[in-house]
Amino acid sequence: MKADWIAVDWGTSNLRAWAMGPDGVIAEGGSENGMGRLARDQFEAALLEVISPWLGTGETPVLACGMVGARQGWFEATYRAVPCAPVEPGDLTAVATQDKRIRVSIVPGLQQPNPADVMRGEETQIAGALALMPGFDGVFCLPGTHSKWAHVSAGEVVSFQTYMTGEMFALLSTQSVLRHGMAEGGWDEAAFDQGVDDAFSRPEKIAARLFTLRAEGLLNGLSAAAARARLSGLLIGSELAAAKPYWLGQRVVLVGAEALATSYARALAAQGVTATRLDATACSLSGLATARGLLRKAAQ
Amino acid sequence: MKADWIAVDWGTSNLRAWAMGPDGVIAEGGSENGMGRLARDQFEAALLEVISPWLGTGETPVLACGMVGARQGWFEATYRAVPCAPVEPGDLTAVATQDKRIRVSIVPGLQQPNPADVMRGEETQIAGALALMPGFDGVFCLPGTHSKWAHVSAGEVVSFQTYMTGEMFALLSTQSVLRHGMAEGGWDEAAFDQGVDDAFSRPEKIAARLFTLRAEGLLNGLSAAAARARLSGLLIGSELAAAKPYWLGQRVVLVGAEALATSYARALAAQGVTATRLDATACSLSGLATARGLLRKAAQ
Repeated sequence: MKADWIAVDWGTSNLRAWAMGPDGVIAEGGSENGMGRLARDQFEAALLEVISPWLGTGETPVLACGMVGARQGWFEATYRAVPCAPVEPGDLTAVATQDKRIRVSIVPGLQQPNPADVMRGEETQIAGALALMPGFDGVFCLPGTHSKWAHVSAGEVVSFQTYMTGEMFALLSTQSVLRHGMAEGGWDEAAFDQGVDDAFSRPEKIAARLFTLRAEGLLNGLSAAAARARLSGLLIGSELAAAKPYWLGQRVVLVGAEALATSYARALAAQGVTATRLDATACSLSGLATARGLLRKAAQ
Repeated sequence: MKADWIAVDWGTSNLRAWAMGPDGVIAEGGSENGMGRLARDQFEAALLEVISPWLGTGETPVLACGMVGARQGWFEATYRAVPCAPVEPGDLTAVATQDKRIRVSIVPGLQQPNPADVMRGEETQIAGALALMPGFDGVFCLPGTHSKWAHVSAGEVVSFQTYMTGEMFALLSTQSVLRHGMAEGGWDEAAFDQGVDDAFSRPEKIAARLFTLRAEGLLNGLSAAAARARLSGLLIGSELAAAKPYWLGQRVVLVGAEALATSYARALAAQGVTATRLDATACSLSGLATARGLLRKAAQ
């Protein structure tokens, strides 16, 4: 079970890897050795721990995307500036390794000078999405810890914008005073919808909406499920209000984890936008294949 | 140096106490035994540790305000509902103690059914501010971890609204990805002003402004001082946008710690509002004296 090449999605918290054969994935693996917990000289060992069963006697190409290419990662892959194709097979960053059985390349992230913004990893998902939907012009939304909205035209990322929505939700729901009212978890779709509507229709009121969740728990018995879902709705609604120039009148494609993408699709539907959904892992793999040059024709 | 009575401001993180004589404060003390780190049966000892040097052989009244009266505090002081006077000397919550040298009363917090909101401690500062400014009609802003805006008329709190601005600043500047760009601290007034203006003039864009701080640090070398000040400006500007119905066309009095109140005064001045400043500790002491009945006439 030796790999033709190995695809790696290496973020801050996790490492995921796939052994690729002529017909696609033949094995997969991963670990919690994300970029955030590794010193520079620990990356190679962390990678080999996951992929060594897939290596033969010859040299196997390894393509990695994500925070592994950050300044504090394995090796800095200098950002490419938009407007540009999301990935360019001829513009990868090679990383020298001790182990001669692997030849590692990192997909560079993208930067935008003004408004200043950066991405690492999402450019690969966008390239993969474009390979899956050739000729697409419109907008990608990639919800997550740091949600990205990207306007894509003629195969290039024209502009993009990052929102800290996922990180804000994590901080507010687990670290702030609001945690007292939502510790039990759960979900309530009507409360989510209300949060989206509150934030979207009166975005200037967002700062006044948050503590209300705590006070309604204390005074009116607001359930943990409703409080949690409304917080999510408020933050996503606030993101949609700010991202309106991205999605208004555009075709929107959502690339993200199932539950989160469902919430975004629901919030967008409330604004009259029907988003197309693509699987995030399929996009990452397709994007790494694009970077490897395998899907070049399909992407054009 | 025995006290006539003892004033206590007992919040989540700290306990502060003052021995009061006929002409005001004769001694002060405190500890880090805030409500948040005490079990119900530990409050009395935590109090005595600070105030016992001030006790005589008779019974000394102790008046406390703040989170000590929360459900998870020493003894729950049931919220009073607005509209009402901020404190009512005849409506305090007595707490039974083992030690017969003290007679402890807690000032109840205030609640507002709709929009749901609560305060504990600020009602005492508002009462104190009213005692210092008899006949005042207008708006109090009490910036802090959870900033409060309160509309006061004819000696009563008519309505109020809480903003999690201080807590958001702490979480974003020390726990989120933004911490990387602001760890060194510092301050930059022009960056603060820009943040206020950005958030206030385009509040629907707030969700898009945060990650930009990180990206400008990476791409354009935004300094830690500028990033930190702009984050503070964005959050305060967002609060001012939401609180506009409170301050527009009103007399505004700021009650808070020096540095924070200075920032709020500056942000308000940019919107054409000249706020009056009162010292927060003076207001707490004056409010506890009001609760004790000592300032009743002055407050009316």
